Amino acid sequence: MNQLGIVKRHIERADPAAVARLSTLGSATVHEAMGRVGLLKPYMRPIYQGAEATGTAVTVLLHPGDNWMMHVVAEQIQPGDIVVAAITAECTDGYFGDLLATSFQARGARALVIDAGVRDVKFLREMGFPVWSKSISAKGCIKSTLGSVNIPVLCAGALVNPGDVIVADEDGVVVVPALDAARVADVAQQREDLEGEKRARLAAGVLGLDMYKMREPLAAAGLKYID
Amino acid sequence: MNQLGIVKRHIERADPAAVARLSTLGSATVHEAMGRVGLLKPYMRPIYQGAEATGTAVTVLLHPGDNWMMHVVAEQIQPGDIVVAAITAECTDGYFGDLLATSFQARGARALVIDAGVRDVKFLREMGFPVWSKSISAKGCIKSTLGSVNIPVLCAGALVNPGDVIVADEDGVVVVPALDAARVADVAQQREDLEGEKRARLAAGVLGLDMYKMREPLAAAGLKYID
Amino acid sequence: MNQLGIVKRHIERADPAAVARLSTLGSATVHEAMGRVGLLKPYMRPIYQGAEATGTAVTVLLHPGDNWMMHVVAEQIQPGDIVVAAITAECTDGYFGDLLATSFQARGARALVIDAGVRDVKFLREMGFPVWSKSISAKGCIKSTLGSVNIPVLCAGALVNPGDVIVADEDGVVVVPALDAARVADVAQQREDLEGEKRARLAAGVLGLDMYKMREPLAAAGLKYID
Amino acid sequence: MNQLGIVKRHIERADPAAVARLSTLGSATVHEAMGRVGLLKPYMRPIYQGAEATGTAVTVLLHPGDNWMMHVVAEQIQPGDIVVAAITAECTDGYFGDLLATSFQARGARALVIDAGVRDVKFLREMGFPVWSKSISAKGCIKSTLGSVNIPVLCAGALVNPGDVIVADEDGVVVVPALDAARVADVAQQREDLEGEKRARLAAGVLGLDMYKMREPLAAAGLKYID
Amino acid sequence: MNQLGIVKRHIERADPAAVARLSTLGSATVHEAMGRVGLLKPYMRPIYQGAEATGTAVTVLLHPGDNWMMHVVAEQIQPGDIVVAAITAECTDGYFGDLLATSFQARGARALVIDAGVRDVKFLREMGFPVWSKSISAKGCIKSTLGSVNIPVLCAGALVNPGDVIVADEDGVVVVPALDAARVADVAQQREDLEGEKRARLAAGVLGLDMYKMREPLAAAGLKYID
Amino acid sequence: MNQLGIVKRHIERADPAAVARLSTLGSATVHEAMGRVGLLKPYMRPIYQGAEATGTAVTVLLHPGDNWMMHVVAEQIQPGDIVVAAITAECTDGYFGDLLATSFQARGARALVIDAGVRDVKFLREMGFPVWSKSISAKGCIKSTLGSVNIPVLCAGALVNPGDVIVADEDGVVVVPALDAARVADVAQQREDLEGEKRARLAAGVLGLDMYKMREPLAAAGLKYID
Repeated sequence: MNQLGIVKRHIERADPAAVARLSTLGSATVHEAMGRVGLLKPYMRPIYQGAEATGTAVTVLLHPGDNWMMHVVAEQIQPGDIVVAAITAECTDGYFGDLLATSFQARGARALVIDAGVRDVKFLREMGFPVWSKSISAKGCIKSTLGSVNIPVLCAGALVNPGDVIVADEDGVVVVPALDAARVADVAQQREDLEGEKRARLAAGVLGLDMYKMREPLAAAGLKYID
Repeated sequence: MNQLGIVKRHIERADPAAVARLSTLGSATVHEAMGRVGLLKPYMRPIYQGAEATGTAVTVLLHPGDNWMMHVVAEQIQPGDIVVAAITAECTDGYFGDLLATSFQARGARALVIDAGVRDVKFLREMGFPVWSKSISAKGCIKSTLGSVNIPVLCAGALVNPGDVIVADEDGVVVVPALDAARVADVAQQREDLEGEKRARLAAGVLGLDMYKMREPLAAAGLKYID
Repeated sequence: MNQLGIVKRHIERADPAAVARLSTLGSATVHEAMGRVGLLKPYMRPIYQGAEATGTAVTVLLHPGDNWMMHVVAEQIQPGDIVVAAITAECTDGYFGDLLATSFQARGARALVIDAGVRDVKFLREMGFPVWSKSISAKGCIKSTLGSVNIPVLCAGALVNPGDVIVADEDGVVVVPALDAARVADVAQQREDLEGEKRARLAAGVLGLDMYKMREPLAAAGLKYID
Repeated sequence: MNQLGIVKRHIERADPAAVARLSTLGSATVHEAMGRVGLLKPYMRPIYQGAEATGTAVTVLLHPGDNWMMHVVAEQIQPGDIVVAAITAECTDGYFGDLLATSFQARGARALVIDAGVRDVKFLREMGFPVWSKSISAKGCIKSTLGSVNIPVLCAGALVNPGDVIVADEDGVVVVPALDAARVADVAQQREDLEGEKRARLAAGVLGLDMYKMREPLAAAGLKYID
Repeated sequence: MNQLGIVKRHIERADPAAVARLSTLGSATVHEAMGRVGLLKPYMRPIYQGAEATGTAVTVLLHPGDNWMMHVVAEQIQPGDIVVAAITAECTDGYFGDLLATSFQARGARALVIDAGVRDVKFLREMGFPVWSKSISAKGCIKSTLGSVNIPVLCAGALVNPGDVIVADEDGVVVVPALDAARVADVAQQREDLEGEKRARLAAGVLGLDMYKMREPLAAAGLKYID
Repeated sequence: MNQLGIVKRHIERADPAAVARLSTLGSATVHEAMGRVGLLKPYMRPIYQGAEATGTAVTVLLHPGDNWMMHVVAEQIQPGDIVVAAITAECTDGYFGDLLATSFQARGARALVIDAGVRDVKFLREMGFPVWSKSISAKGCIKSTLGSVNIPVLCAGALVNPGDVIVADEDGVVVVPALDAARVADVAQQREDLEGEKRARLAAGVLGLDMYKMREPLAAAGLKYID
């Protein structure tokens, strides 16, 4: 995770069929299916309401206040990718704006996930390029120090390997290891299939206490009802 | 405030007429009428623009990462209630999503106020179920430890007793003690009644300095005008 | 920066022509043109989506929890001004709501920038009065302590002199010294003029690596491509 | 909890014998004995290493930046008391320094617990007057607004009633309801009595896994050992 | 405040006699004498207990993660100076360690005040070189971007001009404008002279209520005593 | 990184000779030798002054508020190990106190690094068992949910594999991959060897500007000296 100055050109992207299936499920369901791991910290928020994207990660490691490698990673984007950007230290600067977004979108990128800031957010919203970030800042970056592209990165508390699946929506950002994508899609789909019926019963007034048969374990745990 | 494993079934809810009157006033006016106490900390934010709700509190005390008691509190909801959820320690996990929201809404709940996180926010917005929370997180919860329902709770820095009135909108969340609801509604309404005329005068260009007769006390306090 | 109890009535506002030109450019471009200084900290956020305003600063220094001077500054507003409010200590209270906004707007103010909180945000959004603030809070203020008006203030990490130009939008808030406004407008406009062509090339798939001729300096810095 | 401008002169202090017994146990043990409730948030830290104090609460509610009521509460102190100070809004100012500490100590106060800041910390350390606070700040206060003394207060997330027992040390601050003090002291002492033997066995190399007989429930929960 | 790449060699330092007098008073007293302005934010903490220093500011503006200018400012240090370091964006990296401290001390610097991080804190403590910083971090810096030396800087929320007096101790850091140093020293000394007698009376059990004659204004403000 | 309920018994610990050599160097030097990667976030602080420890990581992944696995990891400790504890969500609770410390020390552990809280810190200081933690809290934990032992964990922003070397002191905590330990020790030692001479020259008044030959590159970058 430590090499600086390296661009890996060939990465193993997750199976497109699994990505497609995961793209129909939300981050919360996928996170449950993962066994409740792989979630980026909740300070990562979409820059506009309604943002959602699923794709394969190309990763970039950047230095604070320096977005030089954003241009390097642009060349490695393939249609369907999501760029995942980690910074070597805490930073809120705006690493990404209208020009880079135009370039990323032209290369086929579906979104950006960055543990720092972005700018030109009105433009990004109008062009429909979703970003999940830690901050929004008009402060731009210099271009002077090498980072790396397509190495494993720690982004907002999660390990992202290039090629992993990123599922992002208004609830947050989940990373699914490439090799595990098909299995997780299966499990997540099964959860989703069960939810429709549950929702209908709850909407009809059935209590979760009864539907999930919780009354007995609650009593066993010592729950007392008083008046 | 300390008993765990207890569900109180019968609580004294504030007078419905007072709740109805408070529901036409905003949190800022009600907070002033309260003598500027009873406000939850400002990190409690609505999950969507335009959210507003007024109702009677049913309370639940939960453990970090554990939403078991959310199903227990669902049974205690009566139409017009707002669920107020406190956690025994700091937590940002998503305690509440589409299924619980469906159940709460079916029981007649008007909103949720929770000192932690929620998920499925797109669904919540589309179904029109307002939530005020500390965070949004795809991270779900386990169901293993008892909390309590309808005991007094400390939620985001305010004491909430079951049956109190909750007034929540885009400015924040205020709690009004049940026994004080009618009086606070009176005072708040009087404030509101005076505001219309004031607004008209200010819109016409009258200065607050003159309308509130502040020039004299400002001079007495030593204010100096220089060029 | 330290005198309390003073209101300066006559200030030198930036040249209106320069303000008008800066108003057509965004905070990010202006910040670059400034040499990447003059940006308020990124915790300053607009209270509604789409907010943007450019104008000349009238400044006010307030005490925590005390908005008395907001009425004093109202009288000093001239059409085209933006009120910049600093607090002598950290505070999240709501210093500004519907009545003050009505008064400010009647006086010709274009916006408020405040290193604290505001309330009645739904009303502010509906009346189209943009605010950039640190927080939103229903908690109102008392009126008991003198501050000052139109002295230099430190607001959210930036020095603002009365008469300076404030450029605020969804990316943040930038302050441009009054005497420097015309020059900064020139530089910013030049940047902006170049962006259209760049954007078109990037949209056509040209890489920044090539457009900015970065390949050689990257190689010189030691960047290695591997497979 | 809401009345401002009131000083309650007579309060029911916890039984001195119970206070004395609790003073020999630490905040962690007492917190366990309380059923893990009653702890102030962990941002409350002692201002010097080795600080510890146990006593009965006299409470004071203050406004941000205003320490007038600190002089009012001083008169209500009796030997063995700990002053618990809450603020109506977030504030980091220094409410308390060498003069007030001299006065409090002369009245018999054992400590101060304040959800804000203090100053003259070197002096406080040298005179041996312990304080638990949110911050340290040289910024002093004004004296202009009424608060209250000896009403219930919410301090750093915990409800403190006048007369309750405060147990504070390097691990934090716990509040024990006055009427519950004797019972909690019993339970805490029992825990403490068992710890000595446990510590000796663990020091001898016995594992908690065996001492607490955890191996079976861990296996039942599904724990797997691999090589 | 905005020029980058500039080193000002000649600055007007505050009068040494005034500095000497201020050095015998604490930051809290000086801050009061200043009219309660000029205090750096309270997140600025000394790296070891007992740290205190008073001297004249030489200033340096640095970029995030880049400490090149620390070597440039070293040459501008004169005996009795305190280096005040501001960063153009939020940063917690360690800009300063044993080697720079050795150099600064050799040049006669009395302390460092930095709105970022330092490292080698054990060494700094052992050599008796006090630092007030936002953080402690082992993360070092690069040396690639120009900042400036001896320009006005915004450090932790306060404006510092080169030559100003810095008074720093365990309560915080205060900046006194060079031209105001003698006057502030006078006022601060007067405050200090009065404190000894007050302290003696309070230690003897006299209440501030009586010593400051507060009972009447408190009653006038509406304070009520109840039993 | 995702498997729960697993204990790996056999791990490859870093070469003891490399660990011994790294133990004579500080975290700052080792972090530089690593190429400035591998540092845990600076919010991880030692619980007492003077703490330092170097050893091999045994890792444990815990749930918020649940320290059951601390007893499981105790059995896997070998003399010279440092326990590195990660939590699946943000938590400040006290996972570790006097009893577990006694057990860990009896097993030969040198320290604990935990991305959460600990308690009994006075006891830990007196027994000389160093801990680096995010917080200190009297709040204890339950024992109900499985985590894992000796899997890779993300702790405070860094990836730690079981067997890696942990270098911790007052400047922070660095993780060195086991396979890289010898090489990093070499590089770090070389840095250290050069520092003595540099320090002597700086102490003699030589400027870094001259010692590092920075004047020319600074001038080339455009640095201007003015009077």
